[in-house]
Amino acid sequence: MSAPGERSMSVWAAIRTKRMVRSFRDEPLPAELLERIVDAGRHAASSKNQQRWDFIAVQDRARLEALSAVGPYAGHIAGAAAAIALITPDPTRPGASTSIMWDLGLAAENMLLAAWELGIGSCPATVYDQSIAREVLGHPAEVWCGYVLSFGFPADPDDLTRPPKAGGRRPLEEVLHRERW
Amino acid sequence: MSAPGERSMSVWAAIRTKRMVRSFRDEPLPAELLERIVDAGRHAASSKNQQRWDFIAVQDRARLEALSAVGPYAGHIAGAAAAIALITPDPTRPGASTSIMWDLGLAAENMLLAAWELGIGSCPATVYDQSIAREVLGHPAEVWCGYVLSFGFPADPDDLTRPPKAGGRRPLEEVLHRERW
Repeated sequence: MSAPGERSMSVWAAIRTKRMVRSFRDEPLPAELLERIVDAGRHAASSKNQQRWDFIAVQDRARLEALSAVGPYAGHIAGAAAAIALITPDPTRPGASTSIMWDLGLAAENMLLAAWELGIGSCPATVYDQSIAREVLGHPAEVWCGYVLSFGFPADPDDLTRPPKAGGRRPLEEVLHRERW
Repeated sequence: MSAPGERSMSVWAAIRTKRMVRSFRDEPLPAELLERIVDAGRHAASSKNQQRWDFIAVQDRARLEALSAVGPYAGHIAGAAAAIALITPDPTRPGASTSIMWDLGLAAENMLLAAWELGIGSCPATVYDQSIAREVLGHPAEVWCGYVLSFGFPADPDDLTRPPKAGGRRPLEEVLHRERW
């Protein structure tokens, strides 16, 4: 299912080796790889198959720089090869379902893993300032942008193969309960 | 990175072929495969690396049956080989961050894809009745169970290889916007 020359990786290897990448090579992503990433998100299952999501792919440098002002930890967007802004109904409005962000997380992980398989690093940024996102992206008032994902080939290629830091995750014995809490 | 005899699948193939499975073979999951699935969830990135999640793995048949009463679409849990209940801070309390369910979605997709790679089907169930979940699982008052994931070898092995239904997802051209909405 891979085109010739494309990097392929088992699911387990991708999950095990994936790390956050915030620093990217100044090199555009081939169009077909960017589309593959969005397509991976589109394939995710969602509550009652509602697919309450739209994805805005940004590659223009000035727009990426403008988008990096959406939050205090969003600086990595400025140097990304591409960003994908995730648009959903507003999950903070009264009575909004918690499933909006759950579904979006399922779709986003597909994108992050699909990118990693291709040797493309990524980092999610939380949008703190909705008005900046709306000004840059132009989405209508009835939807909302909670996250922007940065993508690009890692500035440090060793990021793709470096072993995970010890202690980065709570141990299995701590998070896993058997039969009851 | 795979043990001998284990099924391995590229990320893209897993994302493309994965389907919902609600009907399972009456055969327990080997302990190491169930642990692999939980471990996949544990590896997910989370907002500020908070890892606000605990996972309760249930394999006892009577407990699975009791758990299948948590919601109107949770019947598949009764016949699953295992269920993993996802425990987080309560995302519905006033002021709770939308990132709780986003993070949980990232972790859950890891589990669902890691299972699929191993030939194990899955289906998420929304918990509508918190009191039933709490009675069966025994988690403390300060945490909450939003979803239970069912896992098992598919009753119909063709589920693992059947091509996706046409029209099941919004087309790429509809969900993907370029540069601006």
